[in-house]
Amino acid sequence: MLSPVRAGTAAEAATGDMALLQAMLDAEAALTRVQGPAWAGKAVTAAAEADRFDVRDLALRARSGGNPVIPLVAALAEAVGPQVAPYVHRGATSQDIVDTAMMLVATRTVPLITADLNRTAEALATLAAEHRDTPMPGRTLTQHAVPTTFGLKAAGWRSLTLDAHARLRALSLPAQLGGAAGTLAAFARTGPDDAFTVPGGDVLGRSPQGVERDHPGENAVPERSTPEETPRRGTDPNAPLSSPSPTPAPEPDPALTLVTAYAAELNLAAPGLPWHTLRAPVADLATALAFTCAALGKLATDVLTLSRTEIAELSEGTGGGSSAMPHKANPVHATLITSAAHQAPALASVLLASLAGAGDERPAGAWHAEWQPLRELLRLAGGAAAYAAELTETLHVHPERMRQNLGLTQGLIVSERLAAALAPALGRTRAKDLLAAASRRTATEGIPLAGALVDALSLDRSAEALADALPPDRLAELTDPTRYTGSAAALVDRALDRKPETPRD
Amino acid sequence: MLSPVRAGTAAEAATGDMALLQAMLDAEAALTRVQGPAWAGKAVTAAAEADRFDVRDLALRARSGGNPVIPLVAALAEAVGPQVAPYVHRGATSQDIVDTAMMLVATRTVPLITADLNRTAEALATLAAEHRDTPMPGRTLTQHAVPTTFGLKAAGWRSLTLDAHARLRALSLPAQLGGAAGTLAAFARTGPDDAFTVPGGDVLGRSPQGVERDHPGENAVPERSTPEETPRRGTDPNAPLSSPSPTPAPEPDPALTLVTAYAAELNLAAPGLPWHTLRAPVADLATALAFTCAALGKLATDVLTLSRTEIAELSEGTGGGSSAMPHKANPVHATLITSAAHQAPALASVLLASLAGAGDERPAGAWHAEWQPLRELLRLAGGAAAYAAELTETLHVHPERMRQNLGLTQGLIVSERLAAALAPALGRTRAKDLLAAASRRTATEGIPLAGALVDALSLDRSAEALADALPPDRLAELTDPTRYTGSAAALVDRALDRKPETPRD
Amino acid sequence: MLSPVRAGTAAEAATGDMALLQAMLDAEAALTRVQGPAWAGKAVTAAAEADRFDVRDLALRARSGGNPVIPLVAALAEAVGPQVAPYVHRGATSQDIVDTAMMLVATRTVPLITADLNRTAEALATLAAEHRDTPMPGRTLTQHAVPTTFGLKAAGWRSLTLDAHARLRALSLPAQLGGAAGTLAAFARTGPDDAFTVPGGDVLGRSPQGVERDHPGENAVPERSTPEETPRRGTDPNAPLSSPSPTPAPEPDPALTLVTAYAAELNLAAPGLPWHTLRAPVADLATALAFTCAALGKLATDVLTLSRTEIAELSEGTGGGSSAMPHKANPVHATLITSAAHQAPALASVLLASLAGAGDERPAGAWHAEWQPLRELLRLAGGAAAYAAELTETLHVHPERMRQNLGLTQGLIVSERLAAALAPALGRTRAKDLLAAASRRTATEGIPLAGALVDALSLDRSAEALADALPPDRLAELTDPTRYTGSAAALVDRALDRKPETPRD
Amino acid sequence: MLSPVRAGTAAEAATGDMALLQAMLDAEAALTRVQGPAWAGKAVTAAAEADRFDVRDLALRARSGGNPVIPLVAALAEAVGPQVAPYVHRGATSQDIVDTAMMLVATRTVPLITADLNRTAEALATLAAEHRDTPMPGRTLTQHAVPTTFGLKAAGWRSLTLDAHARLRALSLPAQLGGAAGTLAAFARTGPDDAFTVPGGDVLGRSPQGVERDHPGENAVPERSTPEETPRRGTDPNAPLSSPSPTPAPEPDPALTLVTAYAAELNLAAPGLPWHTLRAPVADLATALAFTCAALGKLATDVLTLSRTEIAELSEGTGGGSSAMPHKANPVHATLITSAAHQAPALASVLLASLAGAGDERPAGAWHAEWQPLRELLRLAGGAAAYAAELTETLHVHPERMRQNLGLTQGLIVSERLAAALAPALGRTRAKDLLAAASRRTATEGIPLAGALVDALSLDRSAEALADALPPDRLAELTDPTRYTGSAAALVDRALDRKPETPRD
Repeated sequence: MLSPVRAGTAAEAATGDMALLQAMLDAEAALTRVQGPAWAGKAVTAAAEADRFDVRDLALRARSGGNPVIPLVAALAEAVGPQVAPYVHRGATSQDIVDTAMMLVATRTVPLITADLNRTAEALATLAAEHRDTPMPGRTLTQHAVPTTFGLKAAGWRSLTLDAHARLRALSLPAQLGGAAGTLAAFARTGPDDAFTVPGGDVLGRSPQGVERDHPGENAVPERSTPEETPRRGTDPNAPLSSPSPTPAPEPDPALTLVTAYAAELNLAAPGLPWHTLRAPVADLATALAFTCAALGKLATDVLTLSRTEIAELSEGTGGGSSAMPHKANPVHATLITSAAHQAPALASVLLASLAGAGDERPAGAWHAEWQPLRELLRLAGGAAAYAAELTETLHVHPERMRQNLGLTQGLIVSERLAAALAPALGRTRAKDLLAAASRRTATEGIPLAGALVDALSLDRSAEALADALPPDRLAELTDPTRYTGSAAALVDRALDRKPETPRD
Repeated sequence: MLSPVRAGTAAEAATGDMALLQAMLDAEAALTRVQGPAWAGKAVTAAAEADRFDVRDLALRARSGGNPVIPLVAALAEAVGPQVAPYVHRGATSQDIVDTAMMLVATRTVPLITADLNRTAEALATLAAEHRDTPMPGRTLTQHAVPTTFGLKAAGWRSLTLDAHARLRALSLPAQLGGAAGTLAAFARTGPDDAFTVPGGDVLGRSPQGVERDHPGENAVPERSTPEETPRRGTDPNAPLSSPSPTPAPEPDPALTLVTAYAAELNLAAPGLPWHTLRAPVADLATALAFTCAALGKLATDVLTLSRTEIAELSEGTGGGSSAMPHKANPVHATLITSAAHQAPALASVLLASLAGAGDERPAGAWHAEWQPLRELLRLAGGAAAYAAELTETLHVHPERMRQNLGLTQGLIVSERLAAALAPALGRTRAKDLLAAASRRTATEGIPLAGALVDALSLDRSAEALADALPPDRLAELTDPTRYTGSAAALVDRALDRKPETPRD
Repeated sequence: MLSPVRAGTAAEAATGDMALLQAMLDAEAALTRVQGPAWAGKAVTAAAEADRFDVRDLALRARSGGNPVIPLVAALAEAVGPQVAPYVHRGATSQDIVDTAMMLVATRTVPLITADLNRTAEALATLAAEHRDTPMPGRTLTQHAVPTTFGLKAAGWRSLTLDAHARLRALSLPAQLGGAAGTLAAFARTGPDDAFTVPGGDVLGRSPQGVERDHPGENAVPERSTPEETPRRGTDPNAPLSSPSPTPAPEPDPALTLVTAYAAELNLAAPGLPWHTLRAPVADLATALAFTCAALGKLATDVLTLSRTEIAELSEGTGGGSSAMPHKANPVHATLITSAAHQAPALASVLLASLAGAGDERPAGAWHAEWQPLRELLRLAGGAAAYAAELTETLHVHPERMRQNLGLTQGLIVSERLAAALAPALGRTRAKDLLAAASRRTATEGIPLAGALVDALSLDRSAEALADALPPDRLAELTDPTRYTGSAAALVDRALDRKPETPRD
Repeated sequence: MLSPVRAGTAAEAATGDMALLQAMLDAEAALTRVQGPAWAGKAVTAAAEADRFDVRDLALRARSGGNPVIPLVAALAEAVGPQVAPYVHRGATSQDIVDTAMMLVATRTVPLITADLNRTAEALATLAAEHRDTPMPGRTLTQHAVPTTFGLKAAGWRSLTLDAHARLRALSLPAQLGGAAGTLAAFARTGPDDAFTVPGGDVLGRSPQGVERDHPGENAVPERSTPEETPRRGTDPNAPLSSPSPTPAPEPDPALTLVTAYAAELNLAAPGLPWHTLRAPVADLATALAFTCAALGKLATDVLTLSRTEIAELSEGTGGGSSAMPHKANPVHATLITSAAHQAPALASVLLASLAGAGDERPAGAWHAEWQPLRELLRLAGGAAAYAAELTETLHVHPERMRQNLGLTQGLIVSERLAAALAPALGRTRAKDLLAAASRRTATEGIPLAGALVDALSLDRSAEALADALPPDRLAELTDPTRYTGSAAALVDRALDRKPETPRD
């Protein structure tokens, strides 16, 4: 109720406790599938449905151990029965499951965000093309500076939107599997000098039906089709920043092979190393999400300013009403996007700090501090992107108001141009003085700059020839703000040449 | 599920959506009560029960207007029926209700936190007294420095706990009432030159039973007993930092009188000015909560260090187990407290930034960005305090291990003392050189510093007399770490003289 | 060069490396004075002038030990010569000096800030009184809502300024003295069972002239007049939040007495406990400074908005020019204040985190991370306050423009009032519908709301009597924004009753 | 003096006021060179030496306009004389120069950082290879969990170091050129309908010697060799994240061509759009620098823990001494790196917030708030990297101490292994119970786990056969921590296969 920017969004649903619980169950099921035996994998997979578990109860029982996996494994073991139970969570540590689940949640949420960013970019491309030549005041330090175009503004917003999109797509979201201290020791196929061939040896591997245990990780993979729409991130060639190498070479070490199979099973990137305390993937995800919120925040900041009653160059298509004041149409979308942008940078700083604080083989606190801010970032970015898509698709642009506003300073907005135009003939200094005097009259007496300049030139004898060359209509043209938009159109054209990445096949 | 530090705590319940909804309803009911007529106030009060409303539906409908009050007022009006409806939310703006509700939630949550801080301080007082003279290594930059006592450490933790307590108690949490732009215009008793005497004029004020409307804010207050256990904060003499003047002088302006009555009705402080965009109360609350998390974080940081397997001077009484590793007793309480301390400072920075960004008469975004971080801070502080109370009440202290650790450096831990002891006779430089040489032998050869020093002194002829004055037993005494704890005991005594504030009656 | 908000300010000078060096030297000199002997105290005091030391060289030599005290003590010992050297830094640890110096720097900088806050508050009081009844549009979510007054806005800014002032004045800035691990062990007057009466025993205490050493801390204090203009903070009755008890009772423990004398000598508060790792004073200072920046940031945010070319209700008296655009008068003061407000909350979060991270008896990193952000906060608050004083003292207010802007919505800005006015006669629903229809015509056709309403009423038969009662002039009056400012004037009066604290004598 | 982590580093020098001034001058000179005429470009280039300007005076004069370019242009114009002055800063706005200069400073500082990261990665590769099989305790939540190897730990640190390196190398640092509102209007070659062909028309272009002005941007480029060692970033194929398209197609628009030439002249990337308010390059730079500090912070956190007196598995090769305690060898390098890691995330959050707040065509405050935090981040990352290189190159590893610590829990550290080994024969539950009982004896009575287990097994009749199969020596082997390091060695091998990027040619 206190975060309307994300209430009811798809991102909120995809990051809720039920979604997280399902992701943890998916991780556990995948682990059993790749370790085998196959019948156990099937049993765990069948049981691994979030609806069957009491999420509130698990959350409360999570407190004593500090994380929700301990009670979850107990509940899952109970659900599958004593024969399958030994194959649940075998060799894993709680962090393997929580981290993998967080990455699964991210893998399922990020495409929702990028889809809305695509919608936003498309809507902005339309606006930029449509208003390629729509002049409006350029504003610096709150003051009219020189003219610009609304097309260039929209193209700039689109540029940031594509930047956010690119950062999210470049992420590599790896599975986590390392065991108690990240050495994979409990997954090790034991050698001949071991009294018991564990895990996965004869004794353990023999199924109740006497069927030999399948080789882990090989048969396991095809046993389950992977219906996820999200492509396997590990194969993404756009993921150069990932700390884990995306496609590790085939490994003779069976535990390393197991990790690769586990990641493939979950459609996550295969990690180069267990990253229990190498939190680059989390820090990258967090900064990309905060970047997204901030990039959309710039758009929202501009929409808010341009929606001001006095400026009124834009209005939201579906503005929020006010019960008490029937005339008000509040820029609610931009407001909510801004509220996300205000929160995201600080949340990202928590996750960057957790990267630094991830001591030992599992830190006491820095890891636990990641969960809620990371989830919140996914939600804020998800909400902001959803609102940005709606906002840009329904935005009302008021070119005539832009034109009116251009005239507000009576020509002062093009004084830069006049300074340049007069300088060659008069010299820089005299041109500037002349213009300054005329500008002052415009500002104080309210007469148009063109007129003030004619007066000034007529008094300036040495400028006579110049004055002749500048008949009033010529001067009016030079002081026409709509004819001083520089390379804005060319910049729009160039910006629109930048294509959003094509969706992955 | 992702924030075990607060899962299931009283603070979580007190800040949930239902609690917030109830607080908003309380604000609405109080507003009708103080505005009258009395029968309407009764009707709204009776209807204002959170259970009757669909909190999820309200949250979703909150999106279009950007805040939950718009749908809530509609639902409440419907609940009370058409005759009472006109008296609901009269003159108010959404922010009046949201802000007041947030302060109510805070008023109800903060006492939970301070109660746990009191428990913590009490447990720490016991530990400090009990271990007033228990020596342990003092550690600086991770290295043994000179001895300290566990009593002094516990006294320090208690000092910070009391600091947090004092900051929370000093808060002044004001009601909010200002109307659309903070001028109270819609609450104004209209003068003779108005066509309609609104609000509260004859027409409006006449009850269906023909009873004259009560004077607002006077009769209204006694109509409802105030069963809240939390005393009215506005009368707290310890609240010098509140931005609103705590006890504004009686005001002839009826709208200002109304505000005072409204605040009294809710047991909140009366604001000096509407604070729609003067967000000092929020910034203060946020920094006090972050301070609390951080103060407890210091305690937890120390407990984590001293619980390390190699140090083992402390252990949590109710440590978390590990399914895979039966020997492990993780310091889970300290871990979860630390996780709160990692998040709180960044959240507080959002609220400080919202103070700066609160433009106009209601900001577009900065206000909306406050809600979730403020709630999260209440929860983190609540969770951290609850765990700190449990942790300190059940903490195991291992004095014999402290003593063992004191011996780890074979006397080097008191080299400072020896330097001071030798300097008068040998001169500072020679004493230092002698000691450095002996220390090096201790560090590399592992012989006790006392012995190394005797050797060194015996080789140093000019130190002969000194060596005589320092027979081995005297030296052993000087190098006994347990006899070099300085004023630690006196400091503990002084620290324990500081009393927690007595609870308010 | 990259922080114009503070370049050249008094706060910058008061926090520079030279100022810090002087503060460290002051701490060392005070320590020797209170420990004695008197002649050594005099000698160290005489040598403790920052000009005599090479600050750059000290900074570089600080690297190897991680703090600047180690090289400083060496340099100071050299400066005073071998006879006095043993009395330099006796018993202290580096942190004693750095922390004390930081508090001294703060003690010297904060009064500069509060003085500028006083100037600001005074200027704002004048503006609020002068414009007590100057109507202007109230704006919520960027849209005109209902009228307010500039007086109320200025009074609100003043309220936050006084809040900041109160927070800074409430700070208690304590001296630091604890020795290596905060036990004061090296300061302990040794008992009869010690071979050497150190420190300050016969041998050591005998001055070269054979004069007996003075009793430490008693004679020492009067030996030096305290010319500082800042009163001793420890005795400030307004400092209830300080973690150290402001006026500890007389202590029999000589080391504790020494601490008290040392603090008195430096005009700092006496700490209850050594606070090497109890960082409440630093966290409090940081949050008060960030609060100050943010409070002034709200003022600047408003000034920026109201200075916009389209709004133009305010303009800075000494706006920044632009070489290229002679007409521009940028709101530079507000811009720079805003730049401080953007940075301060994040810096404060570092110091809150350092409170949590202050492990052991001296943390490895959390302490070192405090210095630069704390200094930067002092500078940002100092710069922001200086600019705020200038800004408010020279601000241009344009009441006629405010009045023009009030008319921009053709009466819609008072639709709230009309809704209330019509409701009693027409019923809430019909009044609202009528008004909504009229408002729509106003918004789309641009005719004033009064006229649109007359038309609507004339078409509504049942409203005939009402229409008679609302002749056009009456309606015009009701739709006059300048007559709907509610209790704004009364609120201004109340706000101006709040007095800034009187300066300390 | 207050930031020893960066005092005296190369990064500090490369980011100082003099370096920034030089970078601004370089930007101005490049602008004149590419706009021509050539003789003016030469003159400005000759004058553009920072030594000739008074940096302090410029900083102070920067205050009135809010940025240092206004006084700098005046000073530069004066330096080149009246004939050349008109060609200085032509068409540009202050932000063009400041932003370009910040990127130049970054371009010159980042290679210093990556070089130190390379050194660090190399040193860590050596350590990882050398200690590929050195067992040590793995620690989770501060407790011994299962064994790991120091090689794996070092390989993990290296992995993060390479991650940081990759992020810094992937940055695209663009030049800035847009003119007053980012439309390049003042750079536009004017068309036939212009009275004056400016800029660069006949009148203006005629040099004093009557030589025709060169075509801008074409001749200009070769006129000056580019001696910078840093390769031109815009051509870097590894820069997919840059918001500007790295190699924009040749543009017919002359102003766009000018921008490309200007960027080439400065060896910076050519921006796709002016990025006055599209602050992706700044946000990216900031997050990459914060990532670097945090990544090195993880290394430092571990070094600090492992250097603890009680653990002593590592020690810094060049530890800091303590004057009072001759035995102390503080981990100063790790401490200072940590101090940087504590500050960087919050600073990055300021720059992410500035991305969101960059309203209009130049924001009032959000831009100005970037400068100091960005510089500070460059310095912190520079200092942290320099210290990390030194630290890793001289780190002392103590394998024997690691082995001793492995034995601290008397075998409990391998209880996970035993649980797995016993489960097949005994069943999971009984194995666990047996082990728990034995572990309890080990923990409380201090007898080795192997012995306790033998006792337990001997009492458990059904386990008889099992006991036979587990003769004491077999059990001893199973409880040998050094033989339970899992795939640590294989992980090290894989990690070392990851090569640091080869330096750019």
